[in-house]
Amino acid sequence: MAILERHGTGPVTHIKMNSPERLNALSDEMIAALQSELDGIAADPAIRVVVLSGAGKAFCAGHDLKQMTAGRATPDKGAAYFADLFARCSTLMKTIRTLPQPVIAQVHGIATAAGCQMVASCDLAVAAEGTRFGVNGVNIGLFCSTPMVALSRNIPRKQAFEMLTTGEFLSTPEAQALGLINRIATPEDLEATTQALAEKIASKLGSAVRIGKRAFYEQIEMPVDQAYAYTAEVMVQNMLDRDTEEGINAFIEKRHPDWQQ
Amino acid sequence: MAILERHGTGPVTHIKMNSPERLNALSDEMIAALQSELDGIAADPAIRVVVLSGAGKAFCAGHDLKQMTAGRATPDKGAAYFADLFARCSTLMKTIRTLPQPVIAQVHGIATAAGCQMVASCDLAVAAEGTRFGVNGVNIGLFCSTPMVALSRNIPRKQAFEMLTTGEFLSTPEAQALGLINRIATPEDLEATTQALAEKIASKLGSAVRIGKRAFYEQIEMPVDQAYAYTAEVMVQNMLDRDTEEGINAFIEKRHPDWQQ
Amino acid sequence: MAILERHGTGPVTHIKMNSPERLNALSDEMIAALQSELDGIAADPAIRVVVLSGAGKAFCAGHDLKQMTAGRATPDKGAAYFADLFARCSTLMKTIRTLPQPVIAQVHGIATAAGCQMVASCDLAVAAEGTRFGVNGVNIGLFCSTPMVALSRNIPRKQAFEMLTTGEFLSTPEAQALGLINRIATPEDLEATTQALAEKIASKLGSAVRIGKRAFYEQIEMPVDQAYAYTAEVMVQNMLDRDTEEGINAFIEKRHPDWQQ
Repeated sequence: MAILERHGTGPVTHIKMNSPERLNALSDEMIAALQSELDGIAADPAIRVVVLSGAGKAFCAGHDLKQMTAGRATPDKGAAYFADLFARCSTLMKTIRTLPQPVIAQVHGIATAAGCQMVASCDLAVAAEGTRFGVNGVNIGLFCSTPMVALSRNIPRKQAFEMLTTGEFLSTPEAQALGLINRIATPEDLEATTQALAEKIASKLGSAVRIGKRAFYEQIEMPVDQAYAYTAEVMVQNMLDRDTEEGINAFIEKRHPDWQQ
Repeated sequence: MAILERHGTGPVTHIKMNSPERLNALSDEMIAALQSELDGIAADPAIRVVVLSGAGKAFCAGHDLKQMTAGRATPDKGAAYFADLFARCSTLMKTIRTLPQPVIAQVHGIATAAGCQMVASCDLAVAAEGTRFGVNGVNIGLFCSTPMVALSRNIPRKQAFEMLTTGEFLSTPEAQALGLINRIATPEDLEATTQALAEKIASKLGSAVRIGKRAFYEQIEMPVDQAYAYTAEVMVQNMLDRDTEEGINAFIEKRHPDWQQ
Repeated sequence: MAILERHGTGPVTHIKMNSPERLNALSDEMIAALQSELDGIAADPAIRVVVLSGAGKAFCAGHDLKQMTAGRATPDKGAAYFADLFARCSTLMKTIRTLPQPVIAQVHGIATAAGCQMVASCDLAVAAEGTRFGVNGVNIGLFCSTPMVALSRNIPRKQAFEMLTTGEFLSTPEAQALGLINRIATPEDLEATTQALAEKIASKLGSAVRIGKRAFYEQIEMPVDQAYAYTAEVMVQNMLDRDTEEGINAFIEKRHPDWQQ
């Protein structure tokens, strides 16, 4: 049984983490498989939207603690292994952000520690009612320091600080009100709701979504004057796209665009 | 008929975009008129608050697509024109932010694309029930890259990303909950509610509001230590203002201040 | 009667501002006493959580305006005194943020101007129903420029701008929805609710909370790539802590950790 399942035809592709007996822990193998899959998707222009989900009872429960503990059996007590592990995991999270295609987290059960970080790192998230979100590493003495990079860029800081220091969970309505997720569905409707959102985005002009996603994260870290200078250039390039010209013409002429992409 | 209507006496001035047949599109003429009007207001110390609204069915529906399309008829397919257009539009949005006086968007109908950007760029916003907000350029293949500079500095990023990639609209309660607008009024009460907010701010010491607005946007882009060093200096200058001294004395003596400004 | 009361045994310590007749104004004496107390706490590894509250009717009403006015009686009209005052006050606010231990504001009555800044500067805040929050210096001509440094890093900017320019107050539900406070309690339950939150955090591994708090505020001001590089290092150091190893082992073995700290 593969550690990842890939399904979906057409412009929406699904990656399902498939290690349910470990609550889809981000083991070395899982991180490598996700990284490889995303790298392949980045190079595939036919794919327009990615949905990331987990098999079994949970979306993802964070790092694989047994594997990490086994990693201590070196002369440096695991220091080099841990440094490499967190670097690989951070690269994976940054890959979601820099992937040309939008990535939607389809979340159920629990999303904790690096699993919650993955939700925060995705561009969008849809969660089943009853899902719980936590950055609860503090409960075992391991503060969720890398997860908070993504979390604290999604929700207000006092609420992020509370989650990090108490280990308490957010409910789905709380997660939505704070900005961690976009939509809530019943467990039965989770897949259909996520698929509808994915298809809506996939129906847009692919090149526009790609340049928009990239520009979104680039500009958000810039001072506002620089952000305007940068995005104004992006707009010009976007305007010169043949398909954008067609999209605007179709709008003016009240017809459907005939996009080549 | 002028493309802008200006009304209001006393410290609150109103600018109404008046191109209702084009949903107050930000044409070259509209951008130039707004820029000129705001530049004049910036130099007028008698004006303390600006209210920006739109005539007809909508606040503003964004750029003028027909005019933009006409701009393609050049050897460079409009590249220079678009670069200039987005530069002028961005300058306008930054002018709202750097204007000495607070600017309140009084919004109704729809505020889409650069129209939504304008709402986000204003310091404050009051909207009529039923107003819809969108950055829906993606629907015609033109990602709202410049609008997102303002939008993503008003609302949480996952919600901004959703608006940008789906083209879906926010309702007024959603816009308020996320931080895009301050207050909601019935359509009948929209003007009165906005005027009351404007008059409340206009009743404060003008010099204090001016230095405060400027400091607000300056400090928000600084690291926190630098922000404190900067605003501490601003506070000292504020304390040395004759009218601030009078304001504090009046408060201590439980009387109304006799402000010269 | 001391200007500060200190109570609490064990890992949770309480500092109560005790100048109720002046609504716990941040006078020179109060600032000095708080700074001294916090500096002492920073060096005390037995203390894991600090609760900050105010005696009497209010949490804190901001600066001491009578004392500030008295400070004008110098040849420079108080310029040097004000510069020193705002520097000392800003240092105090930054000390809360850089204190190794989490600081919880236990708020009741009113928290205005620098008093509201103090709430925003604390890592967490619990408020009694009916508490009102304002940055209302604009009412007397003194814009809350230093308070807005903390406030605008807690709540969305349009809502912060409204508070600053209108002088209007937030209710507790509003403050919670916007992100200024974490929890609301009845006046009767305020102390118990705050204490329960403090004890929950104090029950975690102290070293993990300390490195986590520091990393939280460091990373939040970094570009995301730098934030990941930094926090990945923090995670490695955290993993090499003897007590974290024990915490993870205990979790795997389904037993309580035997922490030395």
